[in-house]
Amino acid sequence: MRTDDYNLALLCDFYELTMGRGYFNTPMRDRIAYFDVFYRRVPDGGGYAIAAGLEQIIDYIRDLRFTDGDIEFLREKKIFDEEFLRFLRGFRFHGDIWGVPEGSVIFPYEPILTVRAPVIEAQLIETYVLLVLNHESLVATKANRMVRAAKGRPISEFGSRRAHGESAAVLGARAAYIGGCAGTACTLSDRLYGVPAGGTMAHSWVQMFDNEYEAFTTYAKLYPENPCFLVDTYSVFGSGLPNAIRAVKDVLWPAGRTKCAIRIDSGDLAYITKKARRMLDDEGLTDCKIVVSNALDEYLITELLNQEAAIDSFGIGERLITAKSDPVFGCVYKLAACENERGEIVPKIKVSENAAKITNPGFKKVWRFYANESGKAEADLITMHHEEIDQSAPLEIFDPEYTWKRKLLTDFTARELLVPIIRAGEEVYNRPPLEEIRDHCARELNTMWKEVLRFENPHNYYVDLSQELWDLKYKMIAKYIKGNRGD
Amino acid sequence: MRTDDYNLALLCDFYELTMGRGYFNTPMRDRIAYFDVFYRRVPDGGGYAIAAGLEQIIDYIRDLRFTDGDIEFLREKKIFDEEFLRFLRGFRFHGDIWGVPEGSVIFPYEPILTVRAPVIEAQLIETYVLLVLNHESLVATKANRMVRAAKGRPISEFGSRRAHGESAAVLGARAAYIGGCAGTACTLSDRLYGVPAGGTMAHSWVQMFDNEYEAFTTYAKLYPENPCFLVDTYSVFGSGLPNAIRAVKDVLWPAGRTKCAIRIDSGDLAYITKKARRMLDDEGLTDCKIVVSNALDEYLITELLNQEAAIDSFGIGERLITAKSDPVFGCVYKLAACENERGEIVPKIKVSENAAKITNPGFKKVWRFYANESGKAEADLITMHHEEIDQSAPLEIFDPEYTWKRKLLTDFTARELLVPIIRAGEEVYNRPPLEEIRDHCARELNTMWKEVLRFENPHNYYVDLSQELWDLKYKMIAKYIKGNRGD
Repeated sequence: MRTDDYNLALLCDFYELTMGRGYFNTPMRDRIAYFDVFYRRVPDGGGYAIAAGLEQIIDYIRDLRFTDGDIEFLREKKIFDEEFLRFLRGFRFHGDIWGVPEGSVIFPYEPILTVRAPVIEAQLIETYVLLVLNHESLVATKANRMVRAAKGRPISEFGSRRAHGESAAVLGARAAYIGGCAGTACTLSDRLYGVPAGGTMAHSWVQMFDNEYEAFTTYAKLYPENPCFLVDTYSVFGSGLPNAIRAVKDVLWPAGRTKCAIRIDSGDLAYITKKARRMLDDEGLTDCKIVVSNALDEYLITELLNQEAAIDSFGIGERLITAKSDPVFGCVYKLAACENERGEIVPKIKVSENAAKITNPGFKKVWRFYANESGKAEADLITMHHEEIDQSAPLEIFDPEYTWKRKLLTDFTARELLVPIIRAGEEVYNRPPLEEIRDHCARELNTMWKEVLRFENPHNYYVDLSQELWDLKYKMIAKYIKGNRGD
Repeated sequence: MRTDDYNLALLCDFYELTMGRGYFNTPMRDRIAYFDVFYRRVPDGGGYAIAAGLEQIIDYIRDLRFTDGDIEFLREKKIFDEEFLRFLRGFRFHGDIWGVPEGSVIFPYEPILTVRAPVIEAQLIETYVLLVLNHESLVATKANRMVRAAKGRPISEFGSRRAHGESAAVLGARAAYIGGCAGTACTLSDRLYGVPAGGTMAHSWVQMFDNEYEAFTTYAKLYPENPCFLVDTYSVFGSGLPNAIRAVKDVLWPAGRTKCAIRIDSGDLAYITKKARRMLDDEGLTDCKIVVSNALDEYLITELLNQEAAIDSFGIGERLITAKSDPVFGCVYKLAACENERGEIVPKIKVSENAAKITNPGFKKVWRFYANESGKAEADLITMHHEEIDQSAPLEIFDPEYTWKRKLLTDFTARELLVPIIRAGEEVYNRPPLEEIRDHCARELNTMWKEVLRFENPHNYYVDLSQELWDLKYKMIAKYIKGNRGD
C-alpha cells in the first residue's frame, strides 16, 4: 500500500468522481450542500454507541489533495475532461464541518456530523468520513460494552493479528482505548496516538527453551518489574504453574519483589483460575495477578465473573478488534439541504418504504437535555439550526412516530451536541488529548440512566424532533407519497 | 495515521520486542527458528478458504526497518538497552519464507506460510504477517462464496464506507477481486492494485435536482455509454422507473444507444426486479440491465435467484467487506522447530487440552494430490521437509485422528503447495499480476469436488500427515501428557 505519492484523496467511491464531474459541468457546480452523518441501529442490540474517529477526519481534510499521479490515473479512465482534472489538481476542502466530540454517547438518527460545502467537495469526502467514523465508533462501542462487563478489571486490547488490515489494528486500538480499555498490544498505536502498549511473552518463548522453568527465570531476570508468565504451553497444573511459582521464588523473591502475573490462554477459565488462585495463595504468591485471554467478549466476561472466576484482568483480541458479534456500524451520509441561487436553504429528503429510513430534512442542530436534579440525560432533540431552546420554561417534547407520547421537561439544562470542527476549510476545533477523550467517554456514560446501558433489551432513549422540523418533514413526505404503497 | 517517518516496523505486538530483547541478551540470539502459519477453522462453516495477502507480506519484508523516530520512541520505554536499540536500528529480515500462492484453495491445519529465520527476526514479523493474511484471506473467501452464489452474474464490491479503516477498504477490494468479484467502487484500490473501479450516482445526485427526470437526463448526457440510474430515491414505480425510462428514450435512443441499467437499493428485491423487468421490456428497454444492492450476502443472493428475481448484477457492501456473518479469519503463527548449536533441526510442539490445537512439529512441506483421471484434488498431505513423494507407486494416506480411516491413492499427481518467496531476505518469487491471481483462484476451484464447495455442511477435505510426521508428533505429545487431563 505504498506509492511515492501516497494519498487518501482517491480513497473514495468512484461515483463521487463521476458525480463530481457531473456537477462541474452544470450550474450546480458551486451550489452549497448540507450532508448529515447519522447511524440507524446500535450494534449488538445495545442502547447507545460511542462516537470516535473525528480526529482522523480533521487530519484527512487538512491533507486532502490530488497528486499528479492521482490525476494521471484518472486521465487514463478517459471519462474526465481536462478542465475537471485541473480542478481536482487544485482541489482543497473549503467547507464547514460540525461534529460530536469523540467519546460522546450517540443515538440513532441524530446527526453526529454535518458537512456544509460546495456540493462537489461535500460529496468527495463521503467515503473516508463514513469509513473512519464507522470503524472507530464500532470498536469504541464494543470496547465500552466489554469494559462495563469487566466491572473495573482492566482490559488490554490484543487483536492486531486479527484486525482487518493495518489501520484497523492501529486505529482500532485507539478506539478501544477511548471506549475504556487500559491499553493495547499494538506498538504503533502507542507511537502514533499514545495508547499505552504492553506485552510480555508468547508460547514460542516458552517453547524455545529446553524447559518452562528456564524460560520463566530468564524472563524474570530480564524484566523483574512485574513479569507475566504464560503458563499453558504444555499443561497449566502439570508444569506451567509450578514452574512459574518456582521462578518467582527463585528470582523475584530474593530481589525483594513480589509483583507478577500469570496468563492463561486456553481451557475452562473459571475452573482453572479458581484452582490457580488457591495454589498461588497457598504458596504465598498473593501478589501474583491472574490474566486471562482466549476469544473473550462481554457475554463471556459476564459469565466468568458470575461464576466467580479469579480473574484480575483480561486480554481481548479478535472479538473486540473485529467487533465479531456485529461488525458493521452503519453510519450513512445523507443530503439534508442545499442552497439555491439566492443562498436560501432548500431542505431535501430521501423517502423510503421503511419509515425509519426517511431522512430528516434541513440544516439542523442536536440538543441533549439533562435533568438538573439527577444530572442524567433525559432525551435528545433535533431542531432546525435557527431554533433556540429556552431553558427557563418547561418544554414539551414528543415521539416523532407516536406523536401522542409526550413528555414535559422542567428544570433541565440543554447542551448542543454538535460543535464547530472545520470552518471554511480550516480547523477551528481545540483537539483534546486522547486521555481526555477517554475521560469524556466515561463521564458521558455517567450521565446515562442504567436502563439505557443494559446489554439486553435496553430502554429506548428518545431522540425527538422539534415541532418545526416535524412539520417540515411530514409536509415533504406528503409531497412524495402519491401512491408509493406497493413499491 | 501519518508521521514523517511512517513505517510498519512498529506494527507488531509489544511482546515481540520484549521477547526480542530477551533473546538478544541470551545465547539464543542467533538461533534459527521455524514458524508455521496455518488456520484452524473455515469461516461460515464452509469447506475451504482462499489464500490472499502474500504480496503485501513481500512488500512489508522489503521495507522493514526501524526509523530514528521508532528507536527514540522505544528508548523512552526505558526497558530496552542501547545495544538492543542499535541492533533494531540496523534491523533487516535475513530469513527464508515459503508461501502458498495467492488465490490458492487452502484447508485448516496445513502450513500456508513457513518462516525460517533468526528467532528475533522471525518473531518480529509475526503480527503483520498474520494481520494481512487473515484480513485478505477472510475477504477473498467471503467474496468467493458470494460469487459462486451469483452463478455468473457479476458482483461489484461496494463496501469501503463500512470497512474497518482505510487498508480494510483498499486491500479488501483487492481480496474481493481475487475471490472473483468483477470490480470495486474503491478508486484507490484501482490506482494501487489495478482492481477495476466503477460507479455512477448516489441518492444525493437525484435529490440535488428539482426532479428525477432532470437528474437522469443530465447524467445520461454526461455519460451516455451505459449509464446506471438509481431509481429508488422517492418511489421506484411511482417516479424513479418511469423517469429513467423517459430519460433513456429522450437522451440515449436519439443518440442510437440502448445500453444502460437501473439500480435498486431498497425494498423487496425479488418483487421489484420482476415487476421492473416487465415494465422495461414492455417499453422496449430490453438492453437495460437491473443492478441490485442493499445488505446482500451469499444467502440472500441464493434466495433471490431461487425466487427468479430479475437481477443482472449485484453491488455488495458491508456483508462482504466486513465478512459480517463471520469476520474473523484465525491464522496463527506457531513455532515448529529451531536449530540447535550444531545446526540440527529440533522439532517443537505446543500441547493443548483440545486435540485440534496441538501443533504439528518440525520443518514441513505440504502436498496436494490430484487424481489423474478426474483432475480433481483428492487430499493434502503434510510431510517432513526432507520427504519426497513417489508418484509412480500407490500411496496410502490416513486420517491423523481416526487412523483406521485409510485411502489408497493410485494414478495421481502430487504438487507442492508452498513455494519459495523470500530467500536470505531477498524476494525470489515471480509475482503474478492480479488478473492471474484471480484466474488461478478460479482454476483452483475447478479442481475441487462440488461436495467440498457446498455452503452448508460441506464434505470434509482431508489434510493428512505422513507416517513420519505422525510418529514424531505423537512421540512428542507423549512426552508432555503426564497427567494433564483435568487441567
